[in-house]
Amino acid sequence: MLIVRKYGGTSVGSAARIAAVAGQVTELAGQGHQVAVVVSAMGDTTDRLLDLAREIAPTPDVRELDALLATGEMVSTALLAMALRARGQPARSWNALQLPIETSGFAGRARLERIGVAGLREDLARGLVPVVAGFQGRAANGDLTTIGRGGSDTTAVALAAAIGADECQILTDVDGVYTTDPRMVPQARRLERVSFEEMLELAGQGSRVLHLRSVECAARHGVRLRVLSSFTPGPGTLICREESTMEAPLVSGIAFNRDEAAITVADVPDRPGMAHALLAPIAAAGIEIDMIVVNAPRGGRVDLTFTVHRDDFRQALELCSAAATGCDGARVSGDPQVAKLAIVGSGMRSHAGVAATLFATLAALAINIRLVSTSEIKISVLVAEAELERAVRALHQAYGLD
Amino acid sequence: MLIVRKYGGTSVGSAARIAAVAGQVTELAGQGHQVAVVVSAMGDTTDRLLDLAREIAPTPDVRELDALLATGEMVSTALLAMALRARGQPARSWNALQLPIETSGFAGRARLERIGVAGLREDLARGLVPVVAGFQGRAANGDLTTIGRGGSDTTAVALAAAIGADECQILTDVDGVYTTDPRMVPQARRLERVSFEEMLELAGQGSRVLHLRSVECAARHGVRLRVLSSFTPGPGTLICREESTMEAPLVSGIAFNRDEAAITVADVPDRPGMAHALLAPIAAAGIEIDMIVVNAPRGGRVDLTFTVHRDDFRQALELCSAAATGCDGARVSGDPQVAKLAIVGSGMRSHAGVAATLFATLAALAINIRLVSTSEIKISVLVAEAELERAVRALHQAYGLD
Repeated sequence: MLIVRKYGGTSVGSAARIAAVAGQVTELAGQGHQVAVVVSAMGDTTDRLLDLAREIAPTPDVRELDALLATGEMVSTALLAMALRARGQPARSWNALQLPIETSGFAGRARLERIGVAGLREDLARGLVPVVAGFQGRAANGDLTTIGRGGSDTTAVALAAAIGADECQILTDVDGVYTTDPRMVPQARRLERVSFEEMLELAGQGSRVLHLRSVECAARHGVRLRVLSSFTPGPGTLICREESTMEAPLVSGIAFNRDEAAITVADVPDRPGMAHALLAPIAAAGIEIDMIVVNAPRGGRVDLTFTVHRDDFRQALELCSAAATGCDGARVSGDPQVAKLAIVGSGMRSHAGVAATLFATLAALAINIRLVSTSEIKISVLVAEAELERAVRALHQAYGLD
Repeated sequence: MLIVRKYGGTSVGSAARIAAVAGQVTELAGQGHQVAVVVSAMGDTTDRLLDLAREIAPTPDVRELDALLATGEMVSTALLAMALRARGQPARSWNALQLPIETSGFAGRARLERIGVAGLREDLARGLVPVVAGFQGRAANGDLTTIGRGGSDTTAVALAAAIGADECQILTDVDGVYTTDPRMVPQARRLERVSFEEMLELAGQGSRVLHLRSVECAARHGVRLRVLSSFTPGPGTLICREESTMEAPLVSGIAFNRDEAAITVADVPDRPGMAHALLAPIAAAGIEIDMIVVNAPRGGRVDLTFTVHRDDFRQALELCSAAATGCDGARVSGDPQVAKLAIVGSGMRSHAGVAATLFATLAALAINIRLVSTSEIKISVLVAEAELERAVRALHQAYGLD
């Protein structure tokens, strides 16, 4: 097989861990596989560099910040290539300027455009393991760029697509994707396999195993993704296209997100453009709006409720209150102590009753549902944060995931 | 003026020092000068990276070691460019792959071949300060390389030559070139100006202000070099072509080097190729041989004496002893406790009596001269290390340098 493996910052956090990674990669290559590796910066390197930059300038120049941060991944590629060579496994490090990894867009959140693969193909053909710096790219003008959150996972997936890898393996500190967070529900099970769509919903709903963006990239290019533990062996979880022959489980997993805050604007005049007028200032301030629900009009008025990250609650509330003064009679209120949970499963498409089970289970626990939002393979509900744990445990059992 | 300024690792050793450097560069640019800056890695960064590499592999792969070390200078360029921008002085960082700085030869000790100046000229024309990573280069195959000892000084000089700078200023922790080391002789004076040739002899004889290689590069390209202190203002020392109108002082300075060891092979048969046979194994082991003196033949036999760095003494003695077994009757002895001192001055060319003063002064102190070697503008002598300090102080006074 041709395999792209990505190791995160924790996996390469020290010389000893890099040596362990080199051992794993050498073993994989020794089994006859062709292997390319993508690495993140060691441990807290990126944070250390950010601190240094902020010591120099409160708001560092973005071009220079990218040039600075990109060095973190260069360090880990060189060290891993050394460690591989020291074990007798030929290897070669590559940074974004060398391959190149071409990007477009803004510094700090550039988009991957194209990866040069000639050097990688040459390495693979000669039995070398290419070790590629994640998270970084080269802008059209030759600047070093970084591609933002979830960067190295996305680099790995894009690389796998570019060289036509059989599998892209993301090595992390968990041994796969679980039906829900095992720290909350001890009965949570590792999933053998999950579809891209389910994984996208899980990632979008707070599951922190993979970043949304890397899953999107894998789905778009049809890259088979596998989540594995860096520390314990095992088959992990395969994320791939849904197979028609595969009997999709009703519900694959339950994701949740504690750090939500809800804002409600009640009695908004039901006129076109009202939602835009209320939400535009919040979006303009760079605050991400998650769920948005508007009920059916009642007496020419509607209630609009939306959620934001808890850190953004105060600012969003102020912006929304200011915008609401233009809406005759609208009243703004908020609750910063809410949490979101989402039931995700491809089986929902063909099975009724998933929502009914959800409502019945929460009703039996006397848990109030503050907001409901549905997509084809997901139902999200907002509950008081204090009720979250009871809700997730009960639903995990109700859907037969225990 | 168009000025290239180089700041060493100590000068950019912390966020506060980088801010101070940014202040100096902004001030220089504010005086109407065009300024390009070359920087080394911060403080002990290179040593830290080396330690990390050695933790991974006892003898790290040289290509990967270069890729690793080159990140140190990238970090300081990005931070200095940020600091300049934070002060309102537009600036832009450049690494060796971006400019590019083309090199040839081996990893770890590559040679500078050509510096791409299009981007630098554009920056200078637009009022930006380009901040260039010292010590690093790009090999023909795209690999990152490092150029070895004295690297950043040499990068600065080569850059000054490439863009036709009026002056290349090396900012360091001393405020100029002195008649001798002021820590040994308190009466030592800063030289206003010194010729390339004198500086080459001083650098070659142990003066640590500038590396031999950067002075050679400046002499070859006629780059006016100035040594300045990063910490205290002043005119420093200008190193330039010798002016015919300038009355060269008899002796400009006295350099010395404590860490020498002498090896003597006595009674070597006076046959062609004997010196080669004795010294070739030492050179092949990568040991640098400094002074070599062979006396006039006596009874068909000569004595050959040479010096090596004290760290190499044991190995050189063993290699030489092995080689001497082939020389019928030759006897090898050594002394690891010797020091070299050198009197340097362009005025020696036209004045007799310099050597006489040297011998008379040392004779008056009863200091035994172990070895003498002369060039056009330099006389080097080897003495017991314990006598070095007395010798230097007395000669500094004898040549009127106090």
